[in-house]
Amino acid sequence: MNKERLYLYDTTLRDGAQTQGVQFSAKEKQQIAAVLDGLGLDYIEGGWPGANPTDTEFFANPPATRARFTAFGMTKRQGRSADNDDVLGAVLNAGTAAVCLVGKAHDFHVTTALGITLAENVDNIRTSFAHLARLGREALFDAEHFFDGYKANPAYACEVIHAAYAAGARWIVLCDTNGGTLPEDIARIVTEVIASGIPGDHLGIHTHNDTETAVAGSLAAVMAGARQVQGTLNGLGERCGNANLTTLIPTLLLKDPYASRFDIGVTPDALRGLRRASRLLDDMLNRVPSKQAAYVGASAFAHKSGLHASAIAKDPSTYEHIDPAAVGNMRIVPMSNQAGQSNLRARLAEAGITVAADDPALARIVERIKEREAQGYAYDTAQASFELLARAELGLLPNFFEVKRYRVTVERRRNKRNQMVSLSEAVVVTKVQGQKFLNVSESLGPDGSDRGPVNALARALAKDLGPYQAMIEDIELVDFKVRITGGGTEAVTRVIIDSEDGQGNRWSTVGVSANIVDASFDALIDAINWKLVRDGAQA
Amino acid sequence: MNKERLYLYDTTLRDGAQTQGVQFSAKEKQQIAAVLDGLGLDYIEGGWPGANPTDTEFFANPPATRARFTAFGMTKRQGRSADNDDVLGAVLNAGTAAVCLVGKAHDFHVTTALGITLAENVDNIRTSFAHLARLGREALFDAEHFFDGYKANPAYACEVIHAAYAAGARWIVLCDTNGGTLPEDIARIVTEVIASGIPGDHLGIHTHNDTETAVAGSLAAVMAGARQVQGTLNGLGERCGNANLTTLIPTLLLKDPYASRFDIGVTPDALRGLRRASRLLDDMLNRVPSKQAAYVGASAFAHKSGLHASAIAKDPSTYEHIDPAAVGNMRIVPMSNQAGQSNLRARLAEAGITVAADDPALARIVERIKEREAQGYAYDTAQASFELLARAELGLLPNFFEVKRYRVTVERRRNKRNQMVSLSEAVVVTKVQGQKFLNVSESLGPDGSDRGPVNALARALAKDLGPYQAMIEDIELVDFKVRITGGGTEAVTRVIIDSEDGQGNRWSTVGVSANIVDASFDALIDAINWKLVRDGAQA
Repeated sequence: MNKERLYLYDTTLRDGAQTQGVQFSAKEKQQIAAVLDGLGLDYIEGGWPGANPTDTEFFANPPATRARFTAFGMTKRQGRSADNDDVLGAVLNAGTAAVCLVGKAHDFHVTTALGITLAENVDNIRTSFAHLARLGREALFDAEHFFDGYKANPAYACEVIHAAYAAGARWIVLCDTNGGTLPEDIARIVTEVIASGIPGDHLGIHTHNDTETAVAGSLAAVMAGARQVQGTLNGLGERCGNANLTTLIPTLLLKDPYASRFDIGVTPDALRGLRRASRLLDDMLNRVPSKQAAYVGASAFAHKSGLHASAIAKDPSTYEHIDPAAVGNMRIVPMSNQAGQSNLRARLAEAGITVAADDPALARIVERIKEREAQGYAYDTAQASFELLARAELGLLPNFFEVKRYRVTVERRRNKRNQMVSLSEAVVVTKVQGQKFLNVSESLGPDGSDRGPVNALARALAKDLGPYQAMIEDIELVDFKVRITGGGTEAVTRVIIDSEDGQGNRWSTVGVSANIVDASFDALIDAINWKLVRDGAQA
Repeated sequence: MNKERLYLYDTTLRDGAQTQGVQFSAKEKQQIAAVLDGLGLDYIEGGWPGANPTDTEFFANPPATRARFTAFGMTKRQGRSADNDDVLGAVLNAGTAAVCLVGKAHDFHVTTALGITLAENVDNIRTSFAHLARLGREALFDAEHFFDGYKANPAYACEVIHAAYAAGARWIVLCDTNGGTLPEDIARIVTEVIASGIPGDHLGIHTHNDTETAVAGSLAAVMAGARQVQGTLNGLGERCGNANLTTLIPTLLLKDPYASRFDIGVTPDALRGLRRASRLLDDMLNRVPSKQAAYVGASAFAHKSGLHASAIAKDPSTYEHIDPAAVGNMRIVPMSNQAGQSNLRARLAEAGITVAADDPALARIVERIKEREAQGYAYDTAQASFELLARAELGLLPNFFEVKRYRVTVERRRNKRNQMVSLSEAVVVTKVQGQKFLNVSESLGPDGSDRGPVNALARALAKDLGPYQAMIEDIELVDFKVRITGGGTEAVTRVIIDSEDGQGNRWSTVGVSANIVDASFDALIDAINWKLVRDGAQA
């Protein structure tokens, strides 16, 4: 069957850079461009050459991408010729094969924000695209506020885009700049634009997520005939973000009617790298990945309900809309008080522990988990503590070391310069293979500041564990979550610690106590034990 | 104009409880039910009575809600009568006015997961709803896997829901259990179901966000005729979550065609509490609020681009699809504090502090809050700390006492009976009206057990504050939440403490430091200062 070509245009490096709290360096832009190119996108918009030093530096050494590398800018300003507008000149001087210029399609914005006449605006747009056509560049017109403009004054909005199209723009990109247009309106307006004479294979769609429908709006535009979709990785972007390509790509590739009607540049093999691409971007930006993200989130294929888990064991398609491996993700069957033995065996198998269905230890493990959860433990995320608990019941957990006692002190007082400063100090006494180790550590951050009692304990604990030292030396405490459970006078503190080793393995452990330091200490002990089990240490 | 009634059904406490990492206590369910009821939802589904101890406890003392409080369960099992099924019995015994029972609408699941015949399944469903009808309960049929079932075998999927409807179910809820159905398919199938004879005002829609289109799918179902929408606050739920009511509510209330066609139970006044409701749930669950969340996210009305910001200054509607105040949110415009100030005055007025619109302290307070938030502080819930900060800038905060130094020690060792026990001890030195107080306290729970370093500090601090002692004696630390912010090497710990006094007043304070004990101590100091201000203490 003949499929139609659908083009993907990435604006992570331009519109994505408008995310609050995100600031790319030129070097990061290089790295991200490589990730995007690996996915197989058709266009990569790099930024606005001349608008700021980062973009100017980035375009001076553009990445070598298979995708069309694109510069963004704006149509020529009023009162200058296209030749003599230095802002437009800087964009064109970047020398990219494709150039995307923004212009206003909403009459209200022309008069209110630009302060020029409607005819002047149309003329500026026409002249700019005629100039690009003369230079032989592939030209895209970013029709800002198109949908709001079309609702207010359809004749003018159409006049603007037809002027750009007639002057030689290859693509007319209909932008829902404020993100307020719902999918049904997008579908209707795209249909009307095509009826007005601009063919669908010259139309792009650019949506924002202000009503949580950016993905659906993009799909609606494709169904109505648009053949270019713009978006960002992980839905980065101003305010609530842009249409999320991390979601759109698998939907277009795996789900009908899209999969059978369209070809996109992304191969099934590249799709298996999607989860990793999403994580790389989060890591680069030091953002916490969204667990609930469609397709790529850590929870996207997590089956917590016991009814679901037992059906999944019979056939994964009972509760999964796609195979998680297709996007490089995996199934998680967490253990919680809602789950039963089928969850348990599936989860143990994932940890490499095979247990026969009739093993009486299974019932003991479920009992023990219920008992611990009633005390405040939570094993949904703390997979490493879960494994240790199961191993203990199965007789598969060596007794590597014993903690005899510890003491931690936090002190706050004025220093010589009369500033209030803190100091934490921990002493930990352990016994390893008959030998006693007495370790002491302060808690110091990279800048010499105090990081608190849990950090001091972790350092003292990992300072010298005798024969195990080499295995635990590179463990780092990377995240730390605390909450009070139970409430009232019986409140206890639950601590979940994420640890990471030098090879980038990450694991979560849990500790519970009325005393936050004790709870943290228990989680730290689990973190070390899990690493020792994983590395095959002998007791 | 005559509007149609559209009903909102909340399942935060049932399907939302399936979120990985989320575990509600019965007390938290009470608190969340109150928040949901304040928004004006029509139905609040509380959980599954009998399925686990938490839900059984919650239904034994159901919350007094204006909304219809609903119990969830499943249709009777094969081989029992509806009268003799103890699982169904436990659900009905909860005595709720409305009952929602799940049953399978997908032939593949009936034979694969249940292992019964298609006819047996229909009969179980029919019998269950006939039983509910005899008992006079408002009955909802949760048609599990309806959309996948309809795609595979439309005749059977329809037979199942018609059996429930004919037997007396008030609502047939069409569930996209696996979350893989796209909006256009939902619209088509809802249209066909209505054509098959079930009126739209008896149809509900229940979607999941596995393709990031749960909100759009719900809207598509409403456009096709369904008149009940199910979802959760903040989109909690299994895997990628349920349809997000925090997004759907403002869209239905503010945006056409929905706003002009439908009445929902949420008033414009309740809508202004939406952002706060969303944050309260996140705080309760100790989840990091999504900055990019539609309508309620901290970035939802943040205008980072310079072009956008200057247009916003001319007219906010240039780059905003709704007025942020409508959902209790606010505009963030870097370089301009104008927007923040009117919000600030309103919040100060709530705290009983009147400030003139032209008071230069307003700008200073906004600056100070921004500065502190950049350090990791959060003032959304910590209203007491916010008030203290504002009072300090306004010259309205007396200097009641000064902390000279403190020291806290946690020790864990074996006692005489060879049990591991902990002991925390704190020394706090304060200066009150020129007099020095040196206090020491252990940390002991009601049962004599150790409650940890923060408890010891709170006790030592409140042991003797000289002239203020009578005012602070009855302060109790009732909740304690900890979060790591910033990430990486610059991570800091944020502690939010809830305190309560003998008259049942409750207030929240915040502290931030790389050291968790320091952060807690700062929050404790704020808690005491706020109480002294509130009780009119003199410095």
